[in-house]
Amino acid sequence: MSLDPVLARIDADLPQALDRLMALLRIPSISTDPAHADACREAADWMVRDLASIGFDARTCPTPKHPMVVGKAGETGPSLLFYGHYDVQPVDPLSLWARDPFDPAIEETPKGKVIRARGAGDDKGQLMTFIEACRAWKAVHGSLPARITMFLEGEEESGSPSMVPFLKENAETLKADLALICDTGMLGNATPAIVTMLRGLVGEEITITGPDKDLHSGMYGGPAINPIRVLARIIAALHDETGRVTVPGFYDGVPEMPEEILAQWQGTGFDPAQFLGEVGLSTPAGEDGRSVLEMLWSRPTCEVNGISGGYEGAGFKTVLPSKASAKISFRLVGSQDPVRIRESFREMVRGLLPPDCSVDFAPHGASPASQMSIGDPAFEKARLALSQEWPNPAAFVGSGGSIPVAGYFRNLLGMDSMLIGFGRDDDAIHSPNEKYDLESFHKGIRSWARILAALSA
Amino acid sequence: MSLDPVLARIDADLPQALDRLMALLRIPSISTDPAHADACREAADWMVRDLASIGFDARTCPTPKHPMVVGKAGETGPSLLFYGHYDVQPVDPLSLWARDPFDPAIEETPKGKVIRARGAGDDKGQLMTFIEACRAWKAVHGSLPARITMFLEGEEESGSPSMVPFLKENAETLKADLALICDTGMLGNATPAIVTMLRGLVGEEITITGPDKDLHSGMYGGPAINPIRVLARIIAALHDETGRVTVPGFYDGVPEMPEEILAQWQGTGFDPAQFLGEVGLSTPAGEDGRSVLEMLWSRPTCEVNGISGGYEGAGFKTVLPSKASAKISFRLVGSQDPVRIRESFREMVRGLLPPDCSVDFAPHGASPASQMSIGDPAFEKARLALSQEWPNPAAFVGSGGSIPVAGYFRNLLGMDSMLIGFGRDDDAIHSPNEKYDLESFHKGIRSWARILAALSA
Repeated sequence: MSLDPVLARIDADLPQALDRLMALLRIPSISTDPAHADACREAADWMVRDLASIGFDARTCPTPKHPMVVGKAGETGPSLLFYGHYDVQPVDPLSLWARDPFDPAIEETPKGKVIRARGAGDDKGQLMTFIEACRAWKAVHGSLPARITMFLEGEEESGSPSMVPFLKENAETLKADLALICDTGMLGNATPAIVTMLRGLVGEEITITGPDKDLHSGMYGGPAINPIRVLARIIAALHDETGRVTVPGFYDGVPEMPEEILAQWQGTGFDPAQFLGEVGLSTPAGEDGRSVLEMLWSRPTCEVNGISGGYEGAGFKTVLPSKASAKISFRLVGSQDPVRIRESFREMVRGLLPPDCSVDFAPHGASPASQMSIGDPAFEKARLALSQEWPNPAAFVGSGGSIPVAGYFRNLLGMDSMLIGFGRDDDAIHSPNEKYDLESFHKGIRSWARILAALSA
Repeated sequence: MSLDPVLARIDADLPQALDRLMALLRIPSISTDPAHADACREAADWMVRDLASIGFDARTCPTPKHPMVVGKAGETGPSLLFYGHYDVQPVDPLSLWARDPFDPAIEETPKGKVIRARGAGDDKGQLMTFIEACRAWKAVHGSLPARITMFLEGEEESGSPSMVPFLKENAETLKADLALICDTGMLGNATPAIVTMLRGLVGEEITITGPDKDLHSGMYGGPAINPIRVLARIIAALHDETGRVTVPGFYDGVPEMPEEILAQWQGTGFDPAQFLGEVGLSTPAGEDGRSVLEMLWSRPTCEVNGISGGYEGAGFKTVLPSKASAKISFRLVGSQDPVRIRESFREMVRGLLPPDCSVDFAPHGASPASQMSIGDPAFEKARLALSQEWPNPAAFVGSGGSIPVAGYFRNLLGMDSMLIGFGRDDDAIHSPNEKYDLESFHKGIRSWARILAALSA
């Protein structure tokens, strides 16, 4: 089946594709916030209706939290599972948004047109690139070039609590030759990337309790233990002076990258100064003696994602609080074991507690790192197809982010994932004023059409 | 003029006195929150009306923020300035209150009746003990036994920004032989106290900025500096392993207490185990080798009153935030210089900043410690008067809290302050479910009547 009319159809249909994306972006499907459960349901229903309009046999599948969307179409060609997520991150601090995060708009910027909204880049804009490619293919040829299962999740930004049981129960429905995932980025603006190494993630929320009520810091300051100070000491103790994580056993299973891989990364044109400069930084933090790309793609980290305690409002309040808490995450590589790292972290925290303090732990997700078998010819086919759409050839790269589902697909369904996405470093995903480049959307759709053609040739 | 009919009048008028206090407690005069400015104004107007009803020539005096209330009455006897504050602390976390903090009620508890509301103990209930004593005296004798200036502030919980200029401009109006301040507590439930040593206070809010926007911790974690981790290291560095504050020069001007004073404190019946046990603690934190009373009354401290950064909502968000901030306060003793300590702290923080990080400082109040000249016979007269009302003799003590106005009275108006109050350790001032014992209110009013009689005899 010929590709060129599909590409032409994509170009002609772009305004309508944008209208569809805007409609999806208007749904505030924040999965982590129980107040937005209805919006998640609404987004899932929207996805089902949209897939049905392209001929997919699609439905929502309930989970204890937000529904999964599963749809099937196509009679011939390779079997492919496409994964994306319709949920989005919270929007706070709302005051830093220049517009309502759920009132999407196309804005002119010095770097070109962008689609501005929460979820534009992560992941609604990205997942729609694949769906629009299918739509164009179906419109031109009357059928799809592959047997495609669409699999859209609503809990990715909440640690995917339902994913493992769902995959186990629906393994036969979901199994395919290869998974396609559109939730990653490019290298700069001209070089597409296929991610073949993904960091894992362990999230922990810790709450330190000292006194059993909030106290006056004048009446009790000194003899009463202050949980904020205890928490600060714990956080400060998580790294040594060289930037290494001090959790015992943390580096077990962390491989050193072969020289040739490091050399290949050098050749991607990645510019650390520009990467940091775009977010107002100039000096790499992190582990001594590691390059920025190493730290992002092949080194594990420990970060504090949030901290809270005592009086946080305007002005001053001389309280000595009862509790202080922090959200801490570890990014994992190689064969680091998320379960052992969680236990070792908890043990270390307990060991740092002074008398009269207690700690509560709340787990938020645990996924190992994953690495794809790029010997599969599909990877090289996709790489060449991408290279035809974009100015520079596509590269096999690592990713600092965690996409746990790729690990689950490998372990539970026995298939590798091809991670291809069109995000840019300045997309501000998880931040105020998130955007997705119009070029990413348009050429992303065209890229998937090319990849579908290459995989089904 | 005879005391007994005044005491009888106080007993008979208690229900009406409680009604008046309840009306005042219903006004949500949170001075630190600009949204409550009208309530502060309303509380000031209420005070003026109430003072006028006892014959005071009273008025509100504007300041850049919340008004001062000044009232004068009495033709003979010693000249006394009574100071209290009509503003209250914020009420968060509101979810921990068992009732609306501004819907006061009298509750039965295992320890007796209490008045429950924000401000019941700090300071509305306390300041009304003095006003009610004046009211009873006036009702019985037709006039007051002393020349009394009432001076009520609306910014005490906000660091008293208007106090110094106001005292300078109104020195002639406010000057008196002695100031009386009702904003302190008892030793346990049976021993009244006159505070003769007060700690000073320096408040600082620091905000660390790293990246110029919130980042995804997977995409940037490692090479991008995390301001929460920087802030945690700074806080952890503020104390050494023995609990001493590490700010350079911090202990300049901190005196060692004479053995006889320490011995006197031992004799007050203060029970460290009970003091800590009431707030769920058992082991004194703070400086090694210092008793709990020393730490509270004669040692300086550094506490973190609030900390904030990154994602603090429900669930998890893998953000690497742009900013993190903390509210930090120092309690001062002896001749520690608040201005030099603020500068030294800022210098230390700047020295701990890694590359690419900046810090903003916001000052919140600076007051030195103060010590009264208890050789003045008025102190001993008051001590004996108090001893007649309560089961145990009254004691001269120190206070861990800071009452900066006492220092301003000394430095700007040349008068000492007699700090007498009826708060209890479990009043939960500055915390949810604040209360004031009904006994404190009733016997507090009687105590002031006795003190007025003693001072004017």
